[in-house]
Amino acid sequence: MSRLVMKFGGTSVANIERIRNVARHVKREVDAGHEVAVVVSAMAGKTNELVAWCTEASPMHDAREYDAVVASGEQVTSGLLAIVLQGMGIQARSWQGWQIPIKTSDAHASARIEDIDGSEIIKRFRERKEVAVIAGFQGINPETNRITTLGRGGSDTSAVAIAAAVKADRCDIYTDVDGVYTTDPRIVPKARRLDKIAFEDMLELASQGAKVLQVRSVELGMVHNMPIFVRSSFDKPEDIDPHANQPPGTLICSEEEIMESHVVTGIAFSKDEAQISVRQIEDKPGVAASIFGPLADANINVDMIVQNVSEDGKTTDLTFTVPAADYTRAKDTITAAKAKIGYARLDTATDVAKISVIGSGMRSHAGVAAQAFSALAGRNINIRAITTSEIKFSVLIDAAYTELAVRTLHTLYGLDQA
Amino acid sequence: MSRLVMKFGGTSVANIERIRNVARHVKREVDAGHEVAVVVSAMAGKTNELVAWCTEASPMHDAREYDAVVASGEQVTSGLLAIVLQGMGIQARSWQGWQIPIKTSDAHASARIEDIDGSEIIKRFRERKEVAVIAGFQGINPETNRITTLGRGGSDTSAVAIAAAVKADRCDIYTDVDGVYTTDPRIVPKARRLDKIAFEDMLELASQGAKVLQVRSVELGMVHNMPIFVRSSFDKPEDIDPHANQPPGTLICSEEEIMESHVVTGIAFSKDEAQISVRQIEDKPGVAASIFGPLADANINVDMIVQNVSEDGKTTDLTFTVPAADYTRAKDTITAAKAKIGYARLDTATDVAKISVIGSGMRSHAGVAAQAFSALAGRNINIRAITTSEIKFSVLIDAAYTELAVRTLHTLYGLDQA
Repeated sequence: MSRLVMKFGGTSVANIERIRNVARHVKREVDAGHEVAVVVSAMAGKTNELVAWCTEASPMHDAREYDAVVASGEQVTSGLLAIVLQGMGIQARSWQGWQIPIKTSDAHASARIEDIDGSEIIKRFRERKEVAVIAGFQGINPETNRITTLGRGGSDTSAVAIAAAVKADRCDIYTDVDGVYTTDPRIVPKARRLDKIAFEDMLELASQGAKVLQVRSVELGMVHNMPIFVRSSFDKPEDIDPHANQPPGTLICSEEEIMESHVVTGIAFSKDEAQISVRQIEDKPGVAASIFGPLADANINVDMIVQNVSEDGKTTDLTFTVPAADYTRAKDTITAAKAKIGYARLDTATDVAKISVIGSGMRSHAGVAAQAFSALAGRNINIRAITTSEIKFSVLIDAAYTELAVRTLHTLYGLDQA
Repeated sequence: MSRLVMKFGGTSVANIERIRNVARHVKREVDAGHEVAVVVSAMAGKTNELVAWCTEASPMHDAREYDAVVASGEQVTSGLLAIVLQGMGIQARSWQGWQIPIKTSDAHASARIEDIDGSEIIKRFRERKEVAVIAGFQGINPETNRITTLGRGGSDTSAVAIAAAVKADRCDIYTDVDGVYTTDPRIVPKARRLDKIAFEDMLELASQGAKVLQVRSVELGMVHNMPIFVRSSFDKPEDIDPHANQPPGTLICSEEEIMESHVVTGIAFSKDEAQISVRQIEDKPGVAASIFGPLADANINVDMIVQNVSEDGKTTDLTFTVPAADYTRAKDTITAAKAKIGYARLDTATDVAKISVIGSGMRSHAGVAAQAFSALAGRNINIRAITTSEIKFSVLIDAAYTELAVRTLHTLYGLDQA
């Protein structure tokens, strides 16, 4: 017998028929003897509708009221799934964040989970074989007794945090893809589904644009060493053998549990980037702050930052990227601060893409990046900038070469399907 | 300065534009220096949608889960109204039933309010001039910490109970009519809006088919002597002078506060009635129970019951009415119990209407009913059955004569507009 948390997103619970399908997945695990907590999102489209009402009510709305409004979406789904499960003869009850309670920080609309009391849920697993149906995405601010939400996509984070709190053996995230791929299969038909991936690698993949899982949920999984299994909610529940060693999907787990690991795990990319190069700034302390301070104040997320060592010890160039949507604002912000920063000119490009190669195996393998540079050169793809970390490197290229670059690297690192 | 509770129903909060209109009503009272708590229903149509989902999920759904799902409608409106009020520069916050808390019985889906702690809301009136925006219709079962609802139309009851808990001076119920009328103006064009009506009379009017207010809310108003003011939510907030002695509407209050009272206050009627007469039952103890027990078991609401004194001391006839929708079930139930009841035959009629004449002035005026009988006879309207109480009498007639009977009695008792 295992203890499982099963998480279902908005498209999986979009109507009663789909909720019934979710319930059959739950029943399969219950029938196999497992203790189950289910975490659900709002019905597809509901959260957007509620958010739109808040914005219509007032563009500058109180985040505490926003949370009260928006959290209602998950409340509805949790009650409905409990009803459907009961109708199938399964003992079940719904739980709102404030009932468990799921205590969070007071950062309304983007709260962080601080503490979950899993004792009552565990007690009911044991005494009543009761399935806990938990509203994702929400919690309570214990100081004010008010509803909080975790920010968009927060239900993944709810699920992993709850899994840790109830000491689950695994957290299953049911989603509209059947696992984590070496790269986007729409770009690289030879992309391969990974059976396993280390938390660190998944964290980089998620941060670099792979949208399978929310980054914070992977962080939490890593902190609590809670295995996360990404699998498809579209599989027919009846077709799955709960006793099979591993059904189709990708297990995100600690590095030690991955026997044979590739040097490179996956390749992520993001197309909607813009590049701004600030030329001939003075090479002295504080100059970087004079650039990124105003950008932070303008709430612009800077991604890559590249600054080379000054050639003459006096001036240097600094390049950074921002989301394409923020390009004009970023350029205007830097232009407005020109006197304070003190630079010669700005060189900018909007049609650029960032390709990231990820793999914790890089730690022990030298020259992984060098292979990429020469392979890209072989395709006549010019590299605009490079950044590296311990288990990842990223290159900035012209967006037109994105697909070619991703496919080239996918083959280079032996990620293509057999 | 007064302390007010203002209640708005589903049509008044059906979209953000209407919620803005509600907020202007609230602002008017706040600007006039009053302390205000607002009670809101779900947006029009939302509760029906949520109820339909529960039924689709399982026809025999758990009332506790139903409550969690359905209470979300009021949660949304309370948050949205708080946002709009804040946008107008008014200090406001939303309150869910569990936050106040509004403690109820454990009868999920039709819970009764048992206790409301109004202290924090009063404190915030005083210290922050904060408007409390309260989700109507819902509460919490303090034993299980689960959401309860009061049953359809429960927001009126929430409003009056909250008014009592925060020691309000008045509870204003904003609705789609501008007050309580002597009878339905669609039937009797000369119907007159009452400036004031006693709790007792309103209770009878509401029980006898006038749909302005939920019966329980009037009961609560009577128990706590909380004046309830029924007024229109469609009036433009700007057109109302908050300092006027009494804006258009009807004040429901204790009898003592009504100076010049008519003997008859109003006339109610209900058309969808069916009549069942059980002929020649034995005139002995327990025979009524043998009829109404099975009907109660079948969840059929019996309205009028008329049993005459036996002529011969041996057998008698018993007549009762049920809603037309329950007629067939009621007849089948009585037929199935024939052996146990022991009756000769059933006489039934489906096209019957009940006309009720209401007025606490009847207590001190003899012959009020007798006038009605002769007036109806003068119109050739046959009376099938009569029931009376201290401040009301009802007659059962052929439905075809409903309008004629109501108009005749309306004129008879001097209720027509000048």
